[in-house]
Amino acid sequence: MKKQRFTEKISCEIDRKKTKSIKPDRCALYKHKGDFRWRGIKDETYKTEGNEWKNIIRRVLIGSRGESTKFHVRYFEITPNGYSSLERHRHEHVVICVKGKGIVRTGKAKHKMEFMDTLYIPPNTVHQLINPFKEPFGFLCMVNSRRDKPKLVKEPER
Amino acid sequence: MKKQRFTEKISCEIDRKKTKSIKPDRCALYKHKGDFRWRGIKDETYKTEGNEWKNIIRRVLIGSRGESTKFHVRYFEITPNGYSSLERHRHEHVVICVKGKGIVRTGKAKHKMEFMDTLYIPPNTVHQLINPFKEPFGFLCMVNSRRDKPKLVKEPER
Repeated sequence: MKKQRFTEKISCEIDRKKTKSIKPDRCALYKHKGDFRWRGIKDETYKTEGNEWKNIIRRVLIGSRGESTKFHVRYFEITPNGYSSLERHRHEHVVICVKGKGIVRTGKAKHKMEFMDTLYIPPNTVHQLINPFKEPFGFLCMVNSRRDKPKLVKEPER
Repeated sequence: MKKQRFTEKISCEIDRKKTKSIKPDRCALYKHKGDFRWRGIKDETYKTEGNEWKNIIRRVLIGSRGESTKFHVRYFEITPNGYSSLERHRHEHVVICVKGKGIVRTGKAKHKMEFMDTLYIPPNTVHQLINPFKEPFGFLCMVNSRRDKPKLVKEPER
């Protein structure tokens, strides 16, 4: 793309160098730097009250910069032997595997997820994402922007 | 995964053979069949009133089976020389490129999108997705579940 073709600065132009300080509800293009890292998107620590999770990185793609969407889009990566907390909550999850593979538990069921497998977890469903494999397990996770806090679940309730 | 490990049928078990007729708000795992096709997800024709679009396939991953999420997740694929309608609307778009590459217009700006590049299009932004390349351009597109109808835009307004 030749930059000189688009000289006029308008509100919706994307300044790739300034995605970090973007104002609410302006266009933003988060360029993929490779290996599921994006320009302008930082790693975050993923935590729950009980700390019953292991080896997870979160990158918030949409939802922490004033966007007006009714949903947020996050990328999570679980390193080998890592897992998310076993939890339930009223809000739904949509999970799309984009890197490696992993295991998802929903209720008493367990399923393998691989590239582009798409999962819908309805409200109040006990669930957990696990990576027993040798490569990182990366997935997009979409949630409603207004949502309740997860409740941790003890193993016997699973 | 050995199936005999999960013998008890509960509401959240995923029956991979029955994803088409899944009831609202039940777990669903849409297995990727390869080449951005999913078990239980049909191709749809993408249309606007003016038919000012070309060569686009839509696959609705989340949003047409009674899910209670405040958002829908769709996969679109634009074949070479295809494009979406030039349009604007009050609702936002989140676009994540997952296959090939394409061009996005937002306002007067034009940017190339490649694998995992993530775009936020705020309300009332004139936009269009175009594939001038030789390979198909595939992307995930997320929108609010309640949204207004797109309005077509004539070229001079761009």
